Amino acid sequence: MRALRERHGSHVSGAELAARLGASKVAIWKHIQALRKEGYDIDSKPKIGYRLVAAPDLLLPYEVEDGLRTDFIGKEIHHHRQVSSTQEAAKGLAAEGAKEGTAVIAEIQARGKGRRGREWHSPAGGVYMSVILMPQMSPARAPLLTLLAGVAVAKVLRHLYDLKAELKWPNDVMVDDRKICGILTEMTAETEAVDYCIVGIGINANIKLADFPSKFRETTTSLKEELGKNVSRAELVRRLLEEMERLYNVFREGGPAPILKEWKALTNTLGALVRITDTGVIEGRAVDVDQDGALIVELADGSSKRVIAGDVSLRRDKPIL
Amino acid sequence: MRALRERHGSHVSGAELAARLGASKVAIWKHIQALRKEGYDIDSKPKIGYRLVAAPDLLLPYEVEDGLRTDFIGKEIHHHRQVSSTQEAAKGLAAEGAKEGTAVIAEIQARGKGRRGREWHSPAGGVYMSVILMPQMSPARAPLLTLLAGVAVAKVLRHLYDLKAELKWPNDVMVDDRKICGILTEMTAETEAVDYCIVGIGINANIKLADFPSKFRETTTSLKEELGKNVSRAELVRRLLEEMERLYNVFREGGPAPILKEWKALTNTLGALVRITDTGVIEGRAVDVDQDGALIVELADGSSKRVIAGDVSLRRDKPIL
Repeated sequence: MRALRERHGSHVSGAELAARLGASKVAIWKHIQALRKEGYDIDSKPKIGYRLVAAPDLLLPYEVEDGLRTDFIGKEIHHHRQVSSTQEAAKGLAAEGAKEGTAVIAEIQARGKGRRGREWHSPAGGVYMSVILMPQMSPARAPLLTLLAGVAVAKVLRHLYDLKAELKWPNDVMVDDRKICGILTEMTAETEAVDYCIVGIGINANIKLADFPSKFRETTTSLKEELGKNVSRAELVRRLLEEMERLYNVFREGGPAPILKEWKALTNTLGALVRITDTGVIEGRAVDVDQDGALIVELADGSSKRVIAGDVSLRRDKPIL
Repeated sequence: MRALRERHGSHVSGAELAARLGASKVAIWKHIQALRKEGYDIDSKPKIGYRLVAAPDLLLPYEVEDGLRTDFIGKEIHHHRQVSSTQEAAKGLAAEGAKEGTAVIAEIQARGKGRRGREWHSPAGGVYMSVILMPQMSPARAPLLTLLAGVAVAKVLRHLYDLKAELKWPNDVMVDDRKICGILTEMTAETEAVDYCIVGIGINANIKLADFPSKFRETTTSLKEELGKNVSRAELVRRLLEEMERLYNVFREGGPAPILKEWKALTNTLGALVRITDTGVIEGRAVDVDQDGALIVELADGSSKRVIAGDVSLRRDKPIL
């Protein structure tokens, strides 16, 4: 693939490819056939060679890995055209001993997962990715990985597309107060230490709003909707993997503080009046997040409450206190 | 099995068994053959019937379930003559959707697991059991299940064998300051809520001290060693499942407080001078456990430190402060 790409649309001879890869011309031909099956449009002319006409619009490992500057996150990518859920696929890989940083990417999820067993609508055009991480920390700290992934997504959306992406505690990335990305962190752990976490990221990328169920349309947006065009999902994933690795290294060296600092600079939740529904309902002002990523809410009576998670509605304009 | 047992060693006719079970006499005969294969000594006399001579000394589901008074814990038992580890087997079952309370019991573990990937020596004669629980709680609370299981073990050892079993934080049951049982709680969870916990219990039951590696002999004991005889492991497991269910129901209804109260009445750790080795070393006096099961240690400078887990040595007789 790299050889074909480097030639920028002109032909590479089978002999040259064979020499470069140390393979026979027949093996090269078989490999070209396999690439064509995956959706690559590759022209071949007798005696002249092969030419890449078009790559499929898929998040194939060749597409994502080409130019990826990371040491371990996304160095091994498992790509699915359709999967039940990337979280489940990644859990299976982790249980079988997959390396830290292994990523599972799918074009479509049949049963994409959100928080608490909810569905994450996953039509073609989105980015559905789960990354295996193995931080040495207690299970109580796992929410920090959700915040970390959120920071990575928001920064990449700001940088690549100039969108004002904001982080809504605990696990959403918003543009214009509509959800553009959701994050789900799951783990397998002993009581005191995490074995591995699976950080799942779903981004509404090249999806029309009309492709969402009507009940979600008021609260959802997509890159296509915001930008009026499709984006390169491979580039998006590549930048995201790079930003995740940078932040994860910061977290491993510096602990929660630097991550929380970046998160606080990007959140729409702190300072807002919030209504949080979980087992009960909590209303108050979100004033801080603590070292485990829990939200500190100041109640009407002046006391404060620590909230681990819940469904949050923000009420910036209508004071409830 | 129940029919054979009820007859207390006299014969039951094949016709009676067939009528009782609604099966053919041939099917009964096949079932008897299967029981014999599992180790049951069953006598058969033409025209008279079958007689149970002896049950094998194994924790077969028939043996444990006979007389078990629980609603869900141990109602489904998976028995292995040998297994890599009951924790791994139970994890597999839980991932496949096993019911809460499902237990995995093994006679021998090839790679019995202790905390932090350590080995749990698991020769024949011990009790190696993992129970699947699905409490609705945050991952930070999982250590409470370790404490809960410890209370169950200590109470059963006290009740059945009149041993002064004590709980050493975080996860050991001690007799005469030697380890007789270890507990390991693992979980699969979202950041804010546990999907399922696997509570593993290893009891040195009918094991001679000589069967332990020499490095463990000074710090280990067994029921056989303490009592000078073998115990009925089936009875032990049955009582343990019952006590676990009782405590688990208390926990689900009343939260951590009543469990912690029972734990505090049985621990040797609170009030003691402790040295805890984890990533660093902490020395001080253990003064309390909090609502998540973490140990509160009072340091020499009067400040206190919250410890989630670690290797603890108690120094009741040699003050270090």
